[in-house]
Amino acid sequence: MSEATISTLPTLHWVGDVGGHLRLIDQTLLPVEVREIDCRDLETVFEAIRSLRVRGAPAIGIAAAYGLVIGAQAANDRDEAGFFAALDSARARLAESRPTAVNLFWALDRTHGVALAARGATSPREIVARLLAEARAIHEEDRAMCRAIGRYGAELLADGQGVLTHCNAGGLATSDYGTALAVFFSAQESGKRLRVYADETRPLLQGARLTAWELQQRGIDVTLICDSMAAQVMREGRVQAVVTGADRIAANGDTANKIGTYGVAVLAAAHDIPFYVAAPTSTFDLSLAGGSQIPIEQRDKREITHGFGRQTAPEGVKVYNPAFDVTPARLIRAIICERGVIAPVTRERIAAALR
Amino acid sequence: MSEATISTLPTLHWVGDVGGHLRLIDQTLLPVEVREIDCRDLETVFEAIRSLRVRGAPAIGIAAAYGLVIGAQAANDRDEAGFFAALDSARARLAESRPTAVNLFWALDRTHGVALAARGATSPREIVARLLAEARAIHEEDRAMCRAIGRYGAELLADGQGVLTHCNAGGLATSDYGTALAVFFSAQESGKRLRVYADETRPLLQGARLTAWELQQRGIDVTLICDSMAAQVMREGRVQAVVTGADRIAANGDTANKIGTYGVAVLAAAHDIPFYVAAPTSTFDLSLAGGSQIPIEQRDKREITHGFGRQTAPEGVKVYNPAFDVTPARLIRAIICERGVIAPVTRERIAAALR
Repeated sequence: MSEATISTLPTLHWVGDVGGHLRLIDQTLLPVEVREIDCRDLETVFEAIRSLRVRGAPAIGIAAAYGLVIGAQAANDRDEAGFFAALDSARARLAESRPTAVNLFWALDRTHGVALAARGATSPREIVARLLAEARAIHEEDRAMCRAIGRYGAELLADGQGVLTHCNAGGLATSDYGTALAVFFSAQESGKRLRVYADETRPLLQGARLTAWELQQRGIDVTLICDSMAAQVMREGRVQAVVTGADRIAANGDTANKIGTYGVAVLAAAHDIPFYVAAPTSTFDLSLAGGSQIPIEQRDKREITHGFGRQTAPEGVKVYNPAFDVTPARLIRAIICERGVIAPVTRERIAAALR
Repeated sequence: MSEATISTLPTLHWVGDVGGHLRLIDQTLLPVEVREIDCRDLETVFEAIRSLRVRGAPAIGIAAAYGLVIGAQAANDRDEAGFFAALDSARARLAESRPTAVNLFWALDRTHGVALAARGATSPREIVARLLAEARAIHEEDRAMCRAIGRYGAELLADGQGVLTHCNAGGLATSDYGTALAVFFSAQESGKRLRVYADETRPLLQGARLTAWELQQRGIDVTLICDSMAAQVMREGRVQAVVTGADRIAANGDTANKIGTYGVAVLAAAHDIPFYVAAPTSTFDLSLAGGSQIPIEQRDKREITHGFGRQTAPEGVKVYNPAFDVTPARLIRAIICERGVIAPVTRERIAAALR
């Protein structure tokens, strides 16, 4: 596979027109192997979502929408009752693939709703075409969101700067540029050369496995470090900004993100380095007044004691393994969303941006 | 092996009297397997040091001193010339085992000097006895140093506190209680119950492999975390003190230690948690005015990209892998050494303590 091909390989895309199929990068093989999977039937889409070959809320939603198209295509020569029975069955099957993924249900409901609206008015073949159009619309909205975040964020960075990121808020979780990484990709497009430091992000190493790979593929100067090295990198003056993604943002701007993000924010403040969060407006949860209301999930101890297939800690040792932490708004210089830059990060500015 | 046996298993010790042998824990098998090696000949000692079965400056020095006894024992029925030829050869061989370990040469010179001083005045058998006595003296001085650091440090901690440590400044690097961990062991002996959080310490995971194991063996409540979780543990109020070791301390108190230590010190300051360094006076290098004069070694990128026996980063990715960082004296509440507690950490107090 040539360098040029890899550098523009999308996370997932639809091949052809009506009658086509879904192609996606098998992320379980990254970063050691880059292989795409062609999903021509429902079960292949189901398995790809369930086995995390495609992951990240936006990407899962788009894969599921295309999956519904594939399920509908297989039944497009049936009569209306048969077609809708097959469609319902496909929807139910896809909904089982990642039962906790909110975006999955949202995308399935949205596409399925288009089919229901057309029922009785047109043929199954035409409905398949409308389903594909809707899936493509979801896909395009995601792309536009990534690009807008990238454009707004890139304005905050200067040519030649060093930047640090934590975990993977990249294109592999979306259909396009991602969120935090979109800022770097857009900066590069606008001619700014950046030096990016990627935290490896223990325990699951998304930074090493995914972020480093994505940046490398797109030709951005990336240096991998262990999480424990971020402070030293800052102290040596190697970075002038930090940009991370977000999992959930409260009404006051407190931001839950991958464990380690809060520590990076404290270190950035101690070194007078601006800390930015890049996330779509869908990440805000205004029902939460502040970060203390965000529950912190505890994960399996084996992620720490048996990371990557080898036992690295004594048998029976206690482990504390929070999946997320919360960075208080006071440590966040700005939140970059698809509607613009929210700064300073206050309840009022957030409310105004989301209005 | 019973729990009680394991809990008091020393890093290394001499079995028997003259004619005895060196027994040490094979640290390369930890934490998955606890196995001791009996070193009855020079080559077994050589191999144990070279292959890192025994590691840490004090422990290497003691192993080498006992190794010289073993080499001398094998030649104790020769005439004086033959005996000293064998002794010189043993010394040269042991010196090759870890050519960069300063403590190794110091211990070999000290024991060898005892033999040279006795040459012509007594028999090879008597010289072997004196060599063993000198090796035991080195061993005992190390033990006393560990215990003194432990006693002084334990006074800084209160019953029921949570404490955090980074890397391994434990007994496995010494013959006894270690330095930072000595503080915890002594506190426990004096009836204080502590909850210790051990950073796993990427890239080489000394915290997960060694510190967690040592604390567990001695019955101390230990919880393993990833380095990226220290900030969250502090924010949740789980720790009231941080204690780490040191590799080198400059005249002004700036302290070089395992990469990640500086970040932990910054985080501790941000959470108003005292940060202590525990290290013997031999760690001070008064020829260095400040931390900026301490060179930072860069290590092999594969420690990061292939750290768990599996490739976890893309082929060809750039890596930044500093082995150490320097914590400025202003972030260190006190330095705990075998002569007492140095606080506040100033050039004057350090000079006075070392006088």
